[in-house]
Amino acid sequence: MSTKSFLMQKQPVAISRTPFPASEKIYVSGTLHPVKVAMRKITLTDTRIHGRKGDAVPNEPVVVYDTSGPYTDPSVDIDVTRGLPRLRESWITGRGDVEQLSQYTSPYVRQLQQKGDNMPGMSITARPLRALPGKNVTQLYYAQQGIITPEMEYIAIRENQYAEKYYQENSPLWHQHPGNSMGANIPKKHITPEFVRQEIAAGRAIIPANINHPESEPMIIGRNFLVKINANIGNSAITSSIEEEVEKAVWSCRWGADTIMDLSTGKNIHETREWIIRNAPVPIGTVPIYQALEKVNGKAEDLTWEIFRDTLIEQAEQGVDYFTIHAGVLLRYIPLTAKRTTGIVSRGGSIMAKWCLAHHKENFLYTHFEDICEIMKAYDVSFSLGDGLRPGSIADANDAAQFAELETLGELTKIAWKHHIQVMIEGPGHVPMHLIKENMDKQLEHCHEAPFYTLGPLTTDIAPGYDHITSGIGAAMIGWFGTAMLCYVTPKEHLGLPNKEDVRQGVITYKIAAHAADLAKGHPGAQHRDNALSKARFEFRWEDQFNLSLDPETARSYHDETLPAEGAKIAHFCSMCGPNFCSMKITQEVRDFAAREGLDEAAVLEAGMQDKARSFAEQGGEIYQ
Amino acid sequence: MSTKSFLMQKQPVAISRTPFPASEKIYVSGTLHPVKVAMRKITLTDTRIHGRKGDAVPNEPVVVYDTSGPYTDPSVDIDVTRGLPRLRESWITGRGDVEQLSQYTSPYVRQLQQKGDNMPGMSITARPLRALPGKNVTQLYYAQQGIITPEMEYIAIRENQYAEKYYQENSPLWHQHPGNSMGANIPKKHITPEFVRQEIAAGRAIIPANINHPESEPMIIGRNFLVKINANIGNSAITSSIEEEVEKAVWSCRWGADTIMDLSTGKNIHETREWIIRNAPVPIGTVPIYQALEKVNGKAEDLTWEIFRDTLIEQAEQGVDYFTIHAGVLLRYIPLTAKRTTGIVSRGGSIMAKWCLAHHKENFLYTHFEDICEIMKAYDVSFSLGDGLRPGSIADANDAAQFAELETLGELTKIAWKHHIQVMIEGPGHVPMHLIKENMDKQLEHCHEAPFYTLGPLTTDIAPGYDHITSGIGAAMIGWFGTAMLCYVTPKEHLGLPNKEDVRQGVITYKIAAHAADLAKGHPGAQHRDNALSKARFEFRWEDQFNLSLDPETARSYHDETLPAEGAKIAHFCSMCGPNFCSMKITQEVRDFAAREGLDEAAVLEAGMQDKARSFAEQGGEIYQ
Repeated sequence: MSTKSFLMQKQPVAISRTPFPASEKIYVSGTLHPVKVAMRKITLTDTRIHGRKGDAVPNEPVVVYDTSGPYTDPSVDIDVTRGLPRLRESWITGRGDVEQLSQYTSPYVRQLQQKGDNMPGMSITARPLRALPGKNVTQLYYAQQGIITPEMEYIAIRENQYAEKYYQENSPLWHQHPGNSMGANIPKKHITPEFVRQEIAAGRAIIPANINHPESEPMIIGRNFLVKINANIGNSAITSSIEEEVEKAVWSCRWGADTIMDLSTGKNIHETREWIIRNAPVPIGTVPIYQALEKVNGKAEDLTWEIFRDTLIEQAEQGVDYFTIHAGVLLRYIPLTAKRTTGIVSRGGSIMAKWCLAHHKENFLYTHFEDICEIMKAYDVSFSLGDGLRPGSIADANDAAQFAELETLGELTKIAWKHHIQVMIEGPGHVPMHLIKENMDKQLEHCHEAPFYTLGPLTTDIAPGYDHITSGIGAAMIGWFGTAMLCYVTPKEHLGLPNKEDVRQGVITYKIAAHAADLAKGHPGAQHRDNALSKARFEFRWEDQFNLSLDPETARSYHDETLPAEGAKIAHFCSMCGPNFCSMKITQEVRDFAAREGLDEAAVLEAGMQDKARSFAEQGGEIYQ
Repeated sequence: MSTKSFLMQKQPVAISRTPFPASEKIYVSGTLHPVKVAMRKITLTDTRIHGRKGDAVPNEPVVVYDTSGPYTDPSVDIDVTRGLPRLRESWITGRGDVEQLSQYTSPYVRQLQQKGDNMPGMSITARPLRALPGKNVTQLYYAQQGIITPEMEYIAIRENQYAEKYYQENSPLWHQHPGNSMGANIPKKHITPEFVRQEIAAGRAIIPANINHPESEPMIIGRNFLVKINANIGNSAITSSIEEEVEKAVWSCRWGADTIMDLSTGKNIHETREWIIRNAPVPIGTVPIYQALEKVNGKAEDLTWEIFRDTLIEQAEQGVDYFTIHAGVLLRYIPLTAKRTTGIVSRGGSIMAKWCLAHHKENFLYTHFEDICEIMKAYDVSFSLGDGLRPGSIADANDAAQFAELETLGELTKIAWKHHIQVMIEGPGHVPMHLIKENMDKQLEHCHEAPFYTLGPLTTDIAPGYDHITSGIGAAMIGWFGTAMLCYVTPKEHLGLPNKEDVRQGVITYKIAAHAADLAKGHPGAQHRDNALSKARFEFRWEDQFNLSLDPETARSYHDETLPAEGAKIAHFCSMCGPNFCSMKITQEVRDFAAREGLDEAAVLEAGMQDKARSFAEQGGEIYQ
């Protein structure tokens, strides 16, 4: 029996493919390269002032950044056992700097391949790509050579929506207030492919884009671009299945995850990852030490450089786009955590700490850092330098251990850049609000403006079950201060494994945090969706309000709980106030009255208003007769 | 049939009374007055290092601020048709400055009373209190006379938990960072009754405490105290019932609401309020114009000062503790809203705007402001000066209309203070993060440091269904900046009426925001609960982690979804990582190892560690054999 039929018989995968309501996938063409940038167009209904026949005013559709990939395009035929279309393949091979290997380099993978059909996964891609000897295939290298890649043009188009419109309108909100652009230097006019190239070349942004993950749609992580979010998924020794994990990935992207980290730790870790990568329209990150630890049966002290090295190559050839590497957990920093309230809470950090203490040797990720660079650059895997000593409680925030490691990550950034490898830096953790900015400031200083990628931070420890919220507060703030990507936290954090609904809650919460940060940073065009939704709300266009929201299903269902009738969705009142009492209805009356009677600001302030007021009162104070 | 039996037969009220797990109500006695301050004591289990017999170390119970009132004290007999014990009655009458009226002053109430048993409410309290002629009964007046009332001592004890402990420890987190105490001047040592008096006398804080609401437990709203939260409840013309509303009030307090606003707009508005006040252990706020509007059948232009005046007296004699009064919506400000994206979104604001335009007269709440003061001071009703022109969208944030009104509220504050009436100021609304601080700064400047009471603010418009989160971000920030009370937002905001679960989500989200602000402001003792919970988490004391959390039920149920077995709650791993892979377990091993082998920071940094490392490796790297 083939792998496919085995799977389809046993546990058919239910992949979410329904397009969002009133939405269609559109593709915007590039001018430098034959790129087609996927976006989501939301069609709006007309504005209709109740009681005024023929007065329908059309509303422009709203186009939004779309992470959902081909899944929400009904014209794309998708078979998860074969994977997504290989969007970037021709761009990668067209550069003439890669070779196709005859087989996987890792002996571990070759063993797995020999096992064959017993393995509950899709057939492993046979022939990975690798940089030709002497060639460098990273986006950073290209950028430094002055090359604008198709990936860069794709990103410029993707990031640029509505920027010019808002530049032309010169919205005073964004350009006059000292509070905006706190950590950012966003171009006020629009984001060009050349701007993308410059930011990459300077190391201020990264494009995670392994040459073995051609299925992913290019995206950028940098503080002068839209703030991104990451969703973690993964099986575990105790629960979950491969099929569930793939749908979790699709589900995460559907709601807005810009990247996905596969943190699987249980059985079939390679196969799980294969499924995810082949079906992921977004970059995939991993923590390779997790799989290395599986290979030594969970005993940290048995880890070796050789096992880790093989795991890096295995994952790089599979197509992982960024690796979290805890190379900053130095032996001398470990005792700095002994008096903490919550010691070392990073899994990778505690594994390396245990290894260091057991052998009393320096962290092999640190001593072999250049070797790691040699591997990663051959596939354009980006670094996510892990914060193994991040604080796990408010009490431990911003302590000596945390900042000592951060300085080391800065040193390592320089080494990676020497190899033209793209780098981002991971950050905390649990941090009270008044200590958040110090994290951003120190990161910019010590890590030479490499993008910051933070977990939360959680702003209090006392709300397990609600840590998407405790951390969403910190995430929004640190995003405003300049963090480029926010790692989501679900309601199950500290308590258990997230289910699909938890993943949605986590993703939406972090989309909120990221968008709030984009607004505060003054990202051009970010406010367009807010304005469209608020206008719809004010005009009682309930359907448009639902469809423009981050989660149309939830918005609609909440509305329908109170007022389920179809007619209520076009009613000129909402359930909070009732038909006689809606503030928006009254305001609309005030505005209509002012317009009809020719009242502008000056007129109202003039004394001679009595007549008009009287005529209004004679009509019963109602505009709509 | 009596009112009581009518109600009990038809819809028995199910009031939440179960104490929180491992919790008991304790009462701390005052020294100046015979006050007994209710608090909740959470008992913790012992710390047990697995594998070390006899090594159980007890953990001190944690005492937390408790808004749940007598409901969570099983020794109190509660009958909601008779109301709560009248805690403050003897304090109020003991001051010798009030008289008991022979009947309600308001003709409207007398009419209701004549209707009798047909009314689906509890029997109305027959004889309200009022200040004796020439006497002033406000807490502000007492404070300015140098009097420390029982209310003030109660508050000092309530706010002071763990303050001295943390002062003695001189936590570097709070006292060395420039980010703390941003808008606050919190005493570093402890909060004394005299400090409470001074803050009240200066107008920087208020104690909402109508002499006709003796059931409420004293609490304070001011930026040098713990940040408070308000929950809105209310029926409407379309859904809900009185019985549901009372349980919603109890339910809101249970989860942490410090005050409740009754925003009812439908039928039986007086009776609903009577039920709520008589059964509320927290102060009750209202927007009297809502009821006045009901009395004129929803036609804003038919409102008159006389109807409003009668409503104020009605509600003051019933026991409402603070009134939202939209006296800053001036005629000349209304046209400033005409070009807004979302016009006027405050219900009270739009009602008054409609009235002003219809009559082309100045807002009667403004022109009769001194008359309003005369009424409110006779009962110690506090002002909550409403922001009728608050922005309803990101696009409208911090505009001319909003700040013009704020300046008027500042003028009105001075007038109210002339009458020794306590005042707080309401604030926005929808505000992007970078414009939040300007709101706080301007409020402090224009309103002479009167406490700020804000709705959110919502930091983006694009997430209906999640506006507890969009606003929780802004609430935490503005709380840090100095806002004294945060008005909650539920997930149903903009969409419908909240149910019980929505209320819980809203309250918990706002407890998170308020607590995050307390931490950032450096409120002494605020971090105690975080530390206790994080220590429990680190030591795998799952039960303690649940019990110390803001919502023990949710924390427990989330945990049990993944690992329901009772044994898992004492397991030394959690479901995220599995038995071989828990970072906290590994850290504990690192720490134990360091302690057992006599490793301190210096020792680890020394070279001669090889022997100890070897002995650790020989044991298999595991501490627990």
